[in-house]
Amino acid sequence: MLEHGGRLLRAARQYGIPASDWLDLSTGVSPFPWPVPELPASVWHRLPEDDDGLIETARAYYGAPDLLPVAGSQAAIQALPQLRVPSRVGVIAPGYAEHAHAWRRAWHEVATLPAGELLAQAHRFDVVVLIHPNNPGGERFGSAQLLELHARLAARGGWLVVDEAFIDVEPDASLCAETAREGLIVLRSVGKFFGMAGARAGFVCASPLLLDALRERLGPWTLSGPSRHALRLALADKAWQASARPRLRAAGERLSGILRAAGLEPAGGCALFQWCRHADARALHKALARRGILTRLFDTPASLRFGLPADEAGFLRLRDALAGIHAEAIA
Amino acid sequence: MLEHGGRLLRAARQYGIPASDWLDLSTGVSPFPWPVPELPASVWHRLPEDDDGLIETARAYYGAPDLLPVAGSQAAIQALPQLRVPSRVGVIAPGYAEHAHAWRRAWHEVATLPAGELLAQAHRFDVVVLIHPNNPGGERFGSAQLLELHARLAARGGWLVVDEAFIDVEPDASLCAETAREGLIVLRSVGKFFGMAGARAGFVCASPLLLDALRERLGPWTLSGPSRHALRLALADKAWQASARPRLRAAGERLSGILRAAGLEPAGGCALFQWCRHADARALHKALARRGILTRLFDTPASLRFGLPADEAGFLRLRDALAGIHAEAIA
Repeated sequence: MLEHGGRLLRAARQYGIPASDWLDLSTGVSPFPWPVPELPASVWHRLPEDDDGLIETARAYYGAPDLLPVAGSQAAIQALPQLRVPSRVGVIAPGYAEHAHAWRRAWHEVATLPAGELLAQAHRFDVVVLIHPNNPGGERFGSAQLLELHARLAARGGWLVVDEAFIDVEPDASLCAETAREGLIVLRSVGKFFGMAGARAGFVCASPLLLDALRERLGPWTLSGPSRHALRLALADKAWQASARPRLRAAGERLSGILRAAGLEPAGGCALFQWCRHADARALHKALARRGILTRLFDTPASLRFGLPADEAGFLRLRDALAGIHAEAIA
Repeated sequence: MLEHGGRLLRAARQYGIPASDWLDLSTGVSPFPWPVPELPASVWHRLPEDDDGLIETARAYYGAPDLLPVAGSQAAIQALPQLRVPSRVGVIAPGYAEHAHAWRRAWHEVATLPAGELLAQAHRFDVVVLIHPNNPGGERFGSAQLLELHARLAARGGWLVVDEAFIDVEPDASLCAETAREGLIVLRSVGKFFGMAGARAGFVCASPLLLDALRERLGPWTLSGPSRHALRLALADKAWQASARPRLRAAGERLSGILRAAGLEPAGGCALFQWCRHADARALHKALARRGILTRLFDTPASLRFGLPADEAGFLRLRDALAGIHAEAIA
């Protein structure tokens, strides 16, 4: 199993700091979650039903002609490689590591490449897997460029898979509306923008042919009743969505400013996280953890990802911790 | 995708009866669900963590040395066949159809046999899949008989898979405590006894070696945060569990009595459902549906499964509907 962010309880034990005292910046989950109302008892009691209105609401939110709810992007990431004969697969790197892991496990020949090289060498691959904006690097791609890439892949029966888990703050950059095209597969998640990482829910936007194969592979009831219920309401809540976007953008800029002021110029990022290369990232990760601030450490390249603090106290705590670490290093 | 019970909304459209007016007996889910309390917001917001105490609580409830939470038995049913090289697999029939379906899809050679034949011909198989008590037939097996069968299979690297989704009313019949034995795999579900079909949650009890392989196959975060939270409380609620068992047994006997009085002698069942063979099961299914009573129809053999009504009004409605259908048939 690969290592992930969000291991607060383990960090709490490791550093002897109670879980409630941590500033957890280890995920890219929004700290301003959509407020889930109390649930009707029936969502626990009854088997979830496909025709509860979730699909229609999701189609409208994502602007996708067809989609399939899945138990988080993770479920789609694991299942998609099982729908192809062994193929040559190019995956963006550094990036969310589960993509390459899942394709390798399904016996595909996988190369991981930085965004520029991946796009330049797309002719080598049957499948190209991008993350947009990339996590943790934050790389962006133009829609025209991606559609042109897709057309080249599709012409030889290939796929372009785009993981848009972090795109909700800038929905115009999404390719969801184009996913009637055979071989264009877009993954969306409600974990990040809606702050509902616990719901384990996302959507695959793709052609009906591909969604049928994926549905058959994933089996019935991929989402729990409580998650279906909450999602349907969250995806329909346009007023909340409209207020969350500027709030997240502002928080992202504040975070980026604090890191920059501490000498940690972000190498990339998006509204929901900032990514900083650092020669001794591991030492910085530990120094922050000793101060009860949990970040996500990457070894290759040595770097830290910072999620958003939930409030001004959190921003100040991060700023002061970075200043303290800097002072220690000089002393 | 196979057909399942729990398609109330579709039946509502098909028969022109509002969903709220139906008596839904199409599942084996308990109509006396464990009362889920209001959830803390954090279970939606945060990524679920493995070390939240769920595992320890589940081990105590199931009496299993090791177990893995999964997104319903369904997730385990789909994943287990992927952990073996193509094998000869014997599956109980009639039984929950997803078992045979999942083994076939993973390229195994599958035979479906009635319980007696399956046990008698176990030497033909590398893997034997039982449902205990069986759904819909209700067949029971002694622990000694199953452990002896497991020993024979395990001696040649085989598996005994026992789906105990309906066993919670009679926990002494479970094999969970024996699952340290390599090749003995028991599936449990919280959907039926706890009435939490919407949670999409269950457990696989097996050896650490097998659970490691399954964990790797299923990936991280198989359960949502709300489900983990509710499950941990439900599995620890011994007082509720102790009161639910006699209540379900009594309801099962009442259901069986009503069916018998209507000339539908159950061919099998358990506390949570009764199963009746009927030469014209399809016509009876439709006649009940026209009266707003949804049952589960099986074609092979022609039969109906009746779940439990939630209250006396439901029992009387079923009794009167069966009497009305009988009167129509005579008229």
